[in-house]
Amino acid sequence: MEEIVVTYRFGPGADPAKEARIIAVGQTAGTWDEKWASRSADLGRHLGKVQDIRPLVDGYEADVAFPAVNVPDGIGALLTMIYGKYSLSGRSRIVDVRLPEGWGLPSRFGIRGIRQKTGVRDRPLFMGIFKPSLGLSPSDLAHLLRETAEAGLDIIKDDEIMPDLPGCTALDRIRACRPVLEKVQQKRPGQGAMLYAVNLSGSGAGLHEKARLLVKEGANALLLSAPAYGYALLEELVSDPEIGVPLFVHPAFAGAYSGASDHGLDWGVVLGTLPVRSGADAVLYPARYGSLPFSEADERRIAGNLRQGGVLPVPSAGIHPGILPRLMDDYGPDVALNAGTGIMDHPMGPAAGVRAFFEALERWEKKEPFDPGTIPGGPLKAAVEKWGR
Amino acid sequence: MEEIVVTYRFGPGADPAKEARIIAVGQTAGTWDEKWASRSADLGRHLGKVQDIRPLVDGYEADVAFPAVNVPDGIGALLTMIYGKYSLSGRSRIVDVRLPEGWGLPSRFGIRGIRQKTGVRDRPLFMGIFKPSLGLSPSDLAHLLRETAEAGLDIIKDDEIMPDLPGCTALDRIRACRPVLEKVQQKRPGQGAMLYAVNLSGSGAGLHEKARLLVKEGANALLLSAPAYGYALLEELVSDPEIGVPLFVHPAFAGAYSGASDHGLDWGVVLGTLPVRSGADAVLYPARYGSLPFSEADERRIAGNLRQGGVLPVPSAGIHPGILPRLMDDYGPDVALNAGTGIMDHPMGPAAGVRAFFEALERWEKKEPFDPGTIPGGPLKAAVEKWGR
Repeated sequence: MEEIVVTYRFGPGADPAKEARIIAVGQTAGTWDEKWASRSADLGRHLGKVQDIRPLVDGYEADVAFPAVNVPDGIGALLTMIYGKYSLSGRSRIVDVRLPEGWGLPSRFGIRGIRQKTGVRDRPLFMGIFKPSLGLSPSDLAHLLRETAEAGLDIIKDDEIMPDLPGCTALDRIRACRPVLEKVQQKRPGQGAMLYAVNLSGSGAGLHEKARLLVKEGANALLLSAPAYGYALLEELVSDPEIGVPLFVHPAFAGAYSGASDHGLDWGVVLGTLPVRSGADAVLYPARYGSLPFSEADERRIAGNLRQGGVLPVPSAGIHPGILPRLMDDYGPDVALNAGTGIMDHPMGPAAGVRAFFEALERWEKKEPFDPGTIPGGPLKAAVEKWGR
Repeated sequence: MEEIVVTYRFGPGADPAKEARIIAVGQTAGTWDEKWASRSADLGRHLGKVQDIRPLVDGYEADVAFPAVNVPDGIGALLTMIYGKYSLSGRSRIVDVRLPEGWGLPSRFGIRGIRQKTGVRDRPLFMGIFKPSLGLSPSDLAHLLRETAEAGLDIIKDDEIMPDLPGCTALDRIRACRPVLEKVQQKRPGQGAMLYAVNLSGSGAGLHEKARLLVKEGANALLLSAPAYGYALLEELVSDPEIGVPLFVHPAFAGAYSGASDHGLDWGVVLGTLPVRSGADAVLYPARYGSLPFSEADERRIAGNLRQGGVLPVPSAGIHPGILPRLMDDYGPDVALNAGTGIMDHPMGPAAGVRAFFEALERWEKKEPFDPGTIPGGPLKAAVEKWGR
């Protein structure tokens, strides 16, 4: 019988055997009373089993196996079973979720599909963010898009807080930017498209229709803060053939689930397992280079889970051209390097920000040093002088 | 200009002025660079403002006001703005969210509509849960429904972990139970209907269609674990006139957001403000009488936020007939009292479990004592002897 195996972590004061039993029974049959003895086969089929309990330096871990038949599909149902009511107790953190192969929705594009669309074969994809987040007009955005596109940027995205502002709705943005995207592609025939991940935002009332309209009007990628809107919405969009474009997941609000160390769900689950199993194509997550307290181990788990599902990891935060050698060492090529200020605030302008990344890549490929004294004058030198290396 | 005012709590080691500024700027314009000085009017319209910073005994609170224009609609967009990227820092807890009047989707039924449908005027509604959670057949459920309905139960619900099991899908359940519901209503003409909140479960792919089908096939209420599926799905369902039945929100997975004391969002926000503004009709939450560590203050905030929006509070956990006097003192009549084992595990059977509640209410109305020696033999006496008072 197929199983879903979940690892829970408990604090040093916990009774892990008791807690694991509460989870295994309370989150499945829900009650186990003598009067149901005659029905034990029916009920037993659904009961969870405590598989293993391990002491840690500062607490315990327990593996609980749930019959997969209890959750035939859907992240919402999965979360309800493995953490639902039990989450209200505040007594454990989920650190790993192992699902049967094929469970959930597969990614439709993922690393391979996004490489195909953009025509970028072997190197990391370079990705930028429209900044400032709010307050620019659609023509401001089209202007920034043109500059960065002509410099060779592969992907650009809205900021995740960009809503449908009057005069600058997602539809206004895509209408202003579509001609630019088309012109870029005409200029580099056979080379693949630049992607613009438009932020999908607003009330659940009509959001699905809005996504369809955006795609119809030329959006060639969408950005969704799935942790804030819910993975059910992501599943809904992924399963609609009319929304046949890569879906980029933004981690906004993921900290509400994962930010406490002894409660909630590990980053690798929330930004790895869950989006992978709900059909995401690319997932952004905080890189260790930024100001957020992210560890190498957190990143490794997220990126590992994403790559295992063929989904593109997009480390974001603190990414700038001077650290490209470290980025190559840490991530390898199967990644989109997402730079906000690292492109838009380049001293010579956004186009130079993009060029600095390509210059850095070339220099890295040639094994040339990155100390500013050795770099010829130009975008990379200016970037390293501003942000270091 | 309309504002959304959010209160953040920080620990004793924090620099609250700095954190509040990071939120006010980082979650709105996103960047504030000299080069945008010429556009300060455009950008300034969207900037958040730190309104107040207060010391607490063990930390600080700060109020940040966001221009409401930044989030015209939708809980997903709201969460992305007020907590989104900042949540990843793990450095604060949201304790209150004050939205402009009329923001979001209004409840379509709420306390008033559910009273109208059930015909229950002045007393608390009595609500039960099918138990065991998994493993019963549709005809088992129909049998339990008949017993409890004939005893006068107002509302029954699936357990929230009940998925679409082979042979016992939501559709199978409603098809088995609909004839019972219809017979009950024929037997008490003019009296209002018993509601059965069917658990809506599964992948976001097709969930909306499933909800429509269930309603078409006779479901007169739906249960959704909105914290697990996302509030965007709730908004989507609420805004569909074909799903014209009360939506009950289950708190499963809410602990992932709220279970840590120094991070995430307060219970009153997750189980009060958010469902109220996404159009819920009734919200279940852990009562202080159960085994979960819920305080009177948590409950008061949840119930207060719900009632302010006209939404029915449904305290659940540890509810049994013997404590009815305390329940009346604590909650008053505008509430649904939700009992799982408190009905289904009654020593004389589920029907007696329901009758015990009515007997308790009558006794309370007559100001009669609840010590077992004074209660005549019957359902209430048996309940008090089993569960106390």
